Amino acid sequence: MYNFKNDYSEGAHPAILAKLLATNLEQHIGYGEDDYSAQAKALLKQKIQNPEAAIYFVSGGTQANLLVISSLLRLHEAVISANTGHIFAHETGAIEAVGHRVITASSPNGKLQPTDIEQVQKAYLLRPHVVKPRMVYISNPTEVGTIYTKQELSELSAYCRAQNLLLFMDGARLGHALTAVGNDLTLPDLAKLTDVFYIGGTKNGALLGEAIVFNSPDLAPDFDYVLKQKGALLAKGRVLGIQFLTLFESDLYFELAAHANQMAAKIAQAVTAQGYSFLTHSTTNQIFPILPKTLITKLSQKYLFFEWKEIDEHRSAVRLITSWATSEAKVAEFIADLKL
Amino acid sequence: MYNFKNDYSEGAHPAILAKLLATNLEQHIGYGEDDYSAQAKALLKQKIQNPEAAIYFVSGGTQANLLVISSLLRLHEAVISANTGHIFAHETGAIEAVGHRVITASSPNGKLQPTDIEQVQKAYLLRPHVVKPRMVYISNPTEVGTIYTKQELSELSAYCRAQNLLLFMDGARLGHALTAVGNDLTLPDLAKLTDVFYIGGTKNGALLGEAIVFNSPDLAPDFDYVLKQKGALLAKGRVLGIQFLTLFESDLYFELAAHANQMAAKIAQAVTAQGYSFLTHSTTNQIFPILPKTLITKLSQKYLFFEWKEIDEHRSAVRLITSWATSEAKVAEFIADLKL
Amino acid sequence: MYNFKNDYSEGAHPAILAKLLATNLEQHIGYGEDDYSAQAKALLKQKIQNPEAAIYFVSGGTQANLLVISSLLRLHEAVISANTGHIFAHETGAIEAVGHRVITASSPNGKLQPTDIEQVQKAYLLRPHVVKPRMVYISNPTEVGTIYTKQELSELSAYCRAQNLLLFMDGARLGHALTAVGNDLTLPDLAKLTDVFYIGGTKNGALLGEAIVFNSPDLAPDFDYVLKQKGALLAKGRVLGIQFLTLFESDLYFELAAHANQMAAKIAQAVTAQGYSFLTHSTTNQIFPILPKTLITKLSQKYLFFEWKEIDEHRSAVRLITSWATSEAKVAEFIADLKL
Amino acid sequence: MYNFKNDYSEGAHPAILAKLLATNLEQHIGYGEDDYSAQAKALLKQKIQNPEAAIYFVSGGTQANLLVISSLLRLHEAVISANTGHIFAHETGAIEAVGHRVITASSPNGKLQPTDIEQVQKAYLLRPHVVKPRMVYISNPTEVGTIYTKQELSELSAYCRAQNLLLFMDGARLGHALTAVGNDLTLPDLAKLTDVFYIGGTKNGALLGEAIVFNSPDLAPDFDYVLKQKGALLAKGRVLGIQFLTLFESDLYFELAAHANQMAAKIAQAVTAQGYSFLTHSTTNQIFPILPKTLITKLSQKYLFFEWKEIDEHRSAVRLITSWATSEAKVAEFIADLKL
Repeated sequence: MYNFKNDYSEGAHPAILAKLLATNLEQHIGYGEDDYSAQAKALLKQKIQNPEAAIYFVSGGTQANLLVISSLLRLHEAVISANTGHIFAHETGAIEAVGHRVITASSPNGKLQPTDIEQVQKAYLLRPHVVKPRMVYISNPTEVGTIYTKQELSELSAYCRAQNLLLFMDGARLGHALTAVGNDLTLPDLAKLTDVFYIGGTKNGALLGEAIVFNSPDLAPDFDYVLKQKGALLAKGRVLGIQFLTLFESDLYFELAAHANQMAAKIAQAVTAQGYSFLTHSTTNQIFPILPKTLITKLSQKYLFFEWKEIDEHRSAVRLITSWATSEAKVAEFIADLKL
Repeated sequence: MYNFKNDYSEGAHPAILAKLLATNLEQHIGYGEDDYSAQAKALLKQKIQNPEAAIYFVSGGTQANLLVISSLLRLHEAVISANTGHIFAHETGAIEAVGHRVITASSPNGKLQPTDIEQVQKAYLLRPHVVKPRMVYISNPTEVGTIYTKQELSELSAYCRAQNLLLFMDGARLGHALTAVGNDLTLPDLAKLTDVFYIGGTKNGALLGEAIVFNSPDLAPDFDYVLKQKGALLAKGRVLGIQFLTLFESDLYFELAAHANQMAAKIAQAVTAQGYSFLTHSTTNQIFPILPKTLITKLSQKYLFFEWKEIDEHRSAVRLITSWATSEAKVAEFIADLKL
Repeated sequence: MYNFKNDYSEGAHPAILAKLLATNLEQHIGYGEDDYSAQAKALLKQKIQNPEAAIYFVSGGTQANLLVISSLLRLHEAVISANTGHIFAHETGAIEAVGHRVITASSPNGKLQPTDIEQVQKAYLLRPHVVKPRMVYISNPTEVGTIYTKQELSELSAYCRAQNLLLFMDGARLGHALTAVGNDLTLPDLAKLTDVFYIGGTKNGALLGEAIVFNSPDLAPDFDYVLKQKGALLAKGRVLGIQFLTLFESDLYFELAAHANQMAAKIAQAVTAQGYSFLTHSTTNQIFPILPKTLITKLSQKYLFFEWKEIDEHRSAVRLITSWATSEAKVAEFIADLKL
Repeated sequence: MYNFKNDYSEGAHPAILAKLLATNLEQHIGYGEDDYSAQAKALLKQKIQNPEAAIYFVSGGTQANLLVISSLLRLHEAVISANTGHIFAHETGAIEAVGHRVITASSPNGKLQPTDIEQVQKAYLLRPHVVKPRMVYISNPTEVGTIYTKQELSELSAYCRAQNLLLFMDGARLGHALTAVGNDLTLPDLAKLTDVFYIGGTKNGALLGEAIVFNSPDLAPDFDYVLKQKGALLAKGRVLGIQFLTLFESDLYFELAAHANQMAAKIAQAVTAQGYSFLTHSTTNQIFPILPKTLITKLSQKYLFFEWKEIDEHRSAVRLITSWATSEAKVAEFIADLKL
């Protein structure tokens, strides 16, 4: 069985393991105070062109989300998310468990616009009997593979600033967004347009690791305490620093993501060629073709993937995910199998 | 201005103040260990015909809700509520602040049925990436004035037991439900059909106070600790005990609620007589007539009430609430004013 | 049995019940937005000579403590308390339950000095592996009946400001402190020297109620949300407003506390006259005489009081508490019984 | 500078990196459902001789502690720890941040005995005004390097069971305890005598990772939800499974720990030979020699270590930690430098 179910089925990109091996017996200070973490943070600040940023490495996306949100909000403040947002749909109430309501806005394409936020705000006016919307959480790409354009993100950012709302971008698959066909955003853009975002490593070649970027250090004066208190501060912080250094000292991070996107695009072209459509318009490494159930049954014998949503009696949308490790050969094989 | 905005605009029923005065200089043990609290609990156990029940008095509805829910659920467990439910709509995220997601089910009449619960359960199967639905929260009457029949509550109760879901009834206005036209439920029924419910005093003649009833003591072995820890244990617990004793040693509690319902019914008849309809079918003390905006404007000059929802360009639904203290004279005056 | 165990054994001062009765059928807006609450807040601002203060009424001391502390601190910030402090010794971990460590400083007389705080700070330097001390919690009077002088409080206040520590005074028995022999502090002093304090009603004549005073409104921009979310916002807020208005529109609050102190002083003089000493030097309404166990046994047959601490094989310290309701006659009777 | 400051200064044991490399491009299911995690769990169950145990891998010790404690206790329940315990001294209030008081018992040697627990229980009797002690937290070895004997642990275990207290052993350095001179405990003993313990990987050769063992599955029916909700569930769970498999499929885990202990013992012998004494009697990889300050200053120029505690004007205790990676050569060099 070949796995198109997610983008964390393999280990790490070989360059990362090589670097871990090469530096293995060096002694370093613990808890993220090591030289490699320092170098990785300095490098990321260059890449985002924001020398003032405060950067922290953590081990996963749910952890990043709960740390950021609980460190920035007070308990009576809430975060707005698309109803497909990971914090609402797939994190076991992690945000509620640290005390905050996740207010959902319905969004067919997974993206939020100022008008979506405005509607939520109108429904939460009856102070003090309702929570106070204080943060907007978005993902890029979204959970349904779509990406924000610079225009869209700029409008959302301007709206949030005007309304005193913090803008937080979940970038668990950020590389895939920034290398997608149709993308016109850059890391420096994110540093200007969001308050905080993170750069996902786990789903793009790292063993584990996400780099949280607070674009102003004033947002995170005590984040080191928060990390430690929530059990997120690794004793061997070098493990995270070395990985991000490896991913960003060349353009490896973007090359890996671009490869994943290309593999998905090849499958998407084949889907279209076979006359099938998609649930969403995705140019990233998650695609959602709508296929006949008979074909789904056939493909299920050789491939692992997620049945996302039933469309009608005969068809369902499936989710196919490619990664830095997906081979051209396997994609070709899948395409060959993509017929009844 | 006469206030139809809520049912807590006046102080307490005079019998309660009289009893507070008559017992004022007696010395009693603090923290709910006084004789009056003991008598009130014994009396309520008789009324609900459940000698095993564990009863606690607290000062308000939001407090009751957060205490019950946080004492019964673990953090990864969630409570299901109608989207109009008080814990979702009007408690400033109190349940999330103690760590739990409130999962909403859409309900046009404010009530939940087994099929509503089943749909939620189907959407929360992806263990461990989603919270675990573990409690069903209902209100009787609901936030839109409707009531559960014995048949409806029995079905819901049977479903919850079969599914290992706790059933919790918010009874902030319980008296109004149990004395409503069309009601066939009794206090002993609630003791059999729910796991926990509360009997609201604040909105039915008390200065403050709700009586939480755990129908099995096994559900609340340490609830005294919980009360104290959450700041809900009054030093002068007698204040709550005396009020519930007064409300229940005669049938005062039900008489007060029945009066409120009758006053609402009079207004409702006048609304119907004028040819207007209602947003929901309520036989309790909250009614939601749909009135011309011109009439609403006129009424607003003499009466306080809540504009609930715009229906169309010309009409809105308003919420009118009566109480134990609403006078026949004021109702007659309002009815006289109920014309353009 | 006559109760010297606490100062909340009776109901309310008759003037309060009279005022509740006189205003009972007036209609008022709910949730603390009523005229009486507004008047009481305005009056208290005059009394403390701080027109900028933000004042909120809540129902009890533990509730006040957890609301204030959780609204002012972030989760990695801790509060320093004497080891006898109420938040450490008698609130069922209420502060930890909202996420904060209570760091204790040992204090034989229940008071904290700058050197006590400094020692704690030295033990909590290893950032980020320890919590960040951010608030100092004191009680006046303390749990062992002692009071702060203006000199002592000024020094503590200056130290806290220099160290960026918030200073919070628990005033559950504040009236007793401010009317004690030896006191030189006033309400306006507290408004200048602390960041936040509260004026206890429950233990000085009210049915229930504490008035929380934030000396700068910047400390509490969203406290209304916090009150509601924690279940502390009474629907009939008038109940609290009316009580504080009654206690402060004349000097009733101070008269009641002075009476309690005088009753305790009478007993204390008799204790001294009998040749017994005290655990602490208290001029407030809690005294801690060290008595022969045989005498304690004898007194226990007629009086309720708390056995505080064993001193040696033959003697224990007991706690005797008087209140606004303690009668001269009962005090005389106790004094007569105070011999073997 | 050579680092004796901690036992996580190097990366992983080479066998672990080799195994990560060898398995790197295999596809595995995420979130700990991979084959290696399953194999590692099965192997650990054999080693502890408890086929019923429920085992979970997490990334660090603070995370393990907060997950275990918050999943087993209700908010009004507290955990008892030695005052040197990691959860009290070095975890930034992580346990309080999930709602629980850590009650400390003073312990000169870092160990807890039944009498220590009994004293705490006596101080926490005033229900419901105090928290309920419900768990005993110990570390083996303790934070000061001492170890529990089988006799000691058996007595503590029996006491806890008789008192309905859960017994939780922090085993961040468990290998060092079980291979220490004087140890007579085994993994199967821990499975019998504790309710839950964990086997630390981070400080004994892993990149990261602790294996939490619930000795009865009834203690952890929903721990998978808890892991996910707290951000502790790694997408690439294989990283943890592979490491524990490598450490335990041979006796590597114990060999590495024994080496660390031997290196510490060599230094300890030299310390004794020089006529210096120790703060505690440690046969594990942490030792606390009391040295002249002049010698400490000299050593500080070549070695990193922690100045633990000032003894008097001329002497301090330092903490020296060795690890699986400490070389004989460096130890010899240090010993040679250990003179004025």
